[in-house]
Amino acid sequence: MTVTSPKGFRAAGVAAGLKSTGALDLALVVNDGPDATAAGVFTANRVKAAPVLWTQQILKGRAVKAVVLNSGGANACTGPGGFQDTHATAEFVASRLGGMGAGQVAVCSTGLIGERLPMPKLLSGVEGASKALAKAGGFAAAEAIMTTDTRPKIVEITGDGWTVGGMAKGAGMLAPALATMLCVLTTDAVAGADALDEALREACRVSFDRVDSDGCMSTNDTVLLLASGASGIEPTQEELTAAVTQACHDLAQQLLADAEGHTKQIAIEVVNADSEEDAVIVGREIARNNLVKTALFGNDPNWGRILAAVGVTDAVYEPDELNVAINDVWVCRNGAAAEDRSKVDLSGVKVHITVDLNAGDHTATVWTNDLSHAYVHENSAYSS
Amino acid sequence: MTVTSPKGFRAAGVAAGLKSTGALDLALVVNDGPDATAAGVFTANRVKAAPVLWTQQILKGRAVKAVVLNSGGANACTGPGGFQDTHATAEFVASRLGGMGAGQVAVCSTGLIGERLPMPKLLSGVEGASKALAKAGGFAAAEAIMTTDTRPKIVEITGDGWTVGGMAKGAGMLAPALATMLCVLTTDAVAGADALDEALREACRVSFDRVDSDGCMSTNDTVLLLASGASGIEPTQEELTAAVTQACHDLAQQLLADAEGHTKQIAIEVVNADSEEDAVIVGREIARNNLVKTALFGNDPNWGRILAAVGVTDAVYEPDELNVAINDVWVCRNGAAAEDRSKVDLSGVKVHITVDLNAGDHTATVWTNDLSHAYVHENSAYSS
Repeated sequence: MTVTSPKGFRAAGVAAGLKSTGALDLALVVNDGPDATAAGVFTANRVKAAPVLWTQQILKGRAVKAVVLNSGGANACTGPGGFQDTHATAEFVASRLGGMGAGQVAVCSTGLIGERLPMPKLLSGVEGASKALAKAGGFAAAEAIMTTDTRPKIVEITGDGWTVGGMAKGAGMLAPALATMLCVLTTDAVAGADALDEALREACRVSFDRVDSDGCMSTNDTVLLLASGASGIEPTQEELTAAVTQACHDLAQQLLADAEGHTKQIAIEVVNADSEEDAVIVGREIARNNLVKTALFGNDPNWGRILAAVGVTDAVYEPDELNVAINDVWVCRNGAAAEDRSKVDLSGVKVHITVDLNAGDHTATVWTNDLSHAYVHENSAYSS
Repeated sequence: MTVTSPKGFRAAGVAAGLKSTGALDLALVVNDGPDATAAGVFTANRVKAAPVLWTQQILKGRAVKAVVLNSGGANACTGPGGFQDTHATAEFVASRLGGMGAGQVAVCSTGLIGERLPMPKLLSGVEGASKALAKAGGFAAAEAIMTTDTRPKIVEITGDGWTVGGMAKGAGMLAPALATMLCVLTTDAVAGADALDEALREACRVSFDRVDSDGCMSTNDTVLLLASGASGIEPTQEELTAAVTQACHDLAQQLLADAEGHTKQIAIEVVNADSEEDAVIVGREIARNNLVKTALFGNDPNWGRILAAVGVTDAVYEPDELNVAINDVWVCRNGAAAEDRSKVDLSGVKVHITVDLNAGDHTATVWTNDLSHAYVHENSAYSS
């Protein structure tokens, strides 16, 4: 159940010495075809890492035959030299693997911003990975892209004779416009680049885009979808989109469950909104509110802070028609206290908040985590 | 140096039993005239507490003869009953003080959202406060409006024969659109309501509006400016605006220095922006970024996170033309690493970040705090 589950893919994960711990830190995923169609979705941050700029550019060719990913360094805010490093990495991968040009090699990096990558180590890692490529290499690849993740995130969705596989990493900087840091999805379905693009955009919109762990948008977020066509089966657009969406949703929930220093996994379901956009805006505002997040860390069903967060948005609603439930206890009706808040049981890891805007019939769910001592600790100690 | 420094004002602070600790929790400020002009600025949150709705309404009359303020309960999200409580409080103040109608009594509340106020206690406190009113009561009033504040915030600015005095409270929910929770400013200058309004709006715009401690907007934020005219002196608009701005800036810095659980007071100066609005937008985005705030808590000059925050905005700039200094060390030039980050000394409480957008000649400074273990602790334990 990894990127190598679909036919036509091999992968590897090796230790290139980019992480001081000696852990796996370089992954290679290769599409052996027969097809090499691809689609990608990237961070909306205007400060984009070199590998994001590179991969956005090569995707215009709509063919990707290999993806090289490293942890241990984001190669973001590294100037023209950083871009040259990415270019050189792609060239080196192409030369080692053969049968492709650098323009068919996607590059992803994750780690600390602002420092150049140690290129001799990285290229030596590529050398090793290219020799280690195997059908069984998906697990090692998923492990090699981890940073503060405590476990690899992998997925497999089975279609009718075809498969979608995937891996992701990300435990912080899970952000409004794109929650993942890095994600590679593979499929042996036969699918053109347009079909892949449509499936991937729709999948991200309702999965990664709706996870907002800490409101911080990464410079490196990349989600790639590669199709080998090796199953010989061409699913309908609906089937493809459904499978890719399911894979993204599964991985997004794995990210949420492994977010830095969380103690709660919080689903914020906004119902009866005037539009789906309104529902997402309200859900995101609550998800990003530090006072809501700290209250939930303290097992405090503080619905007043939820209303204060809703009040910041331009969504359609009347303040005195808002209802809020926490774990199915309607603690607020018509903008004021209702059921006894002491009835709310917040002892579990999962929290479900329902916000009823009373303004229409649209719904959306945004997922987030609480704000804990451990979050502060991990993020104040990250680079030191 | 309090609200009673200017001529024509008396105040009191008493313990009405709203706080379980027995601390002062009810304040009364009375304008003895001869004038009773007033202006107010309120939270932009659409979920507004009952006292905000009340005070916004009575300010249309442009005359305020008394302000009653309570801590120990925000009277927000309390429905029609909560609004009736505010109305009854104003009526009671007017009846006890005489010489005014309820429509000349402003009401401010602060504390937990979503719970009704214990009215018998509150009105009994008003009774006591009305008897305790004194020229020397400004200190007690400032103490009575504190919630998680560790010290009262007071100010006095001296003009040429006239004075501006003030008090403020606020240690959390210091927010983008209005940072204060509650602030009452007084002056014995002769000034019409329009002049007060102009002075107060300009003062808030460059002071409270630019303090963003934790990005959370309150339901209760209120800043009032009352003029007694007792000095007999009418300053120019420029003089009045300058004095009120100085008073607001001073109080805003006191709020920042007493923000919940902070270890740093951070000034984010954005220079060479295309517009002042751009500078504020960029400053605020950095101020609200949890990864920047936790890095500074950990004494980590992590400029990459600053760039990632800038990248979220629509401000005019080119990513490869951004420069960043932390405490005057230019750690980033042209979007990449420059001076050695180990040169940055973050051992002090005050941190100065300079972000050069290289896009124009406008400047603005936004003030914030770091995100610490203590912030998480205080805000997860607030209502329990």
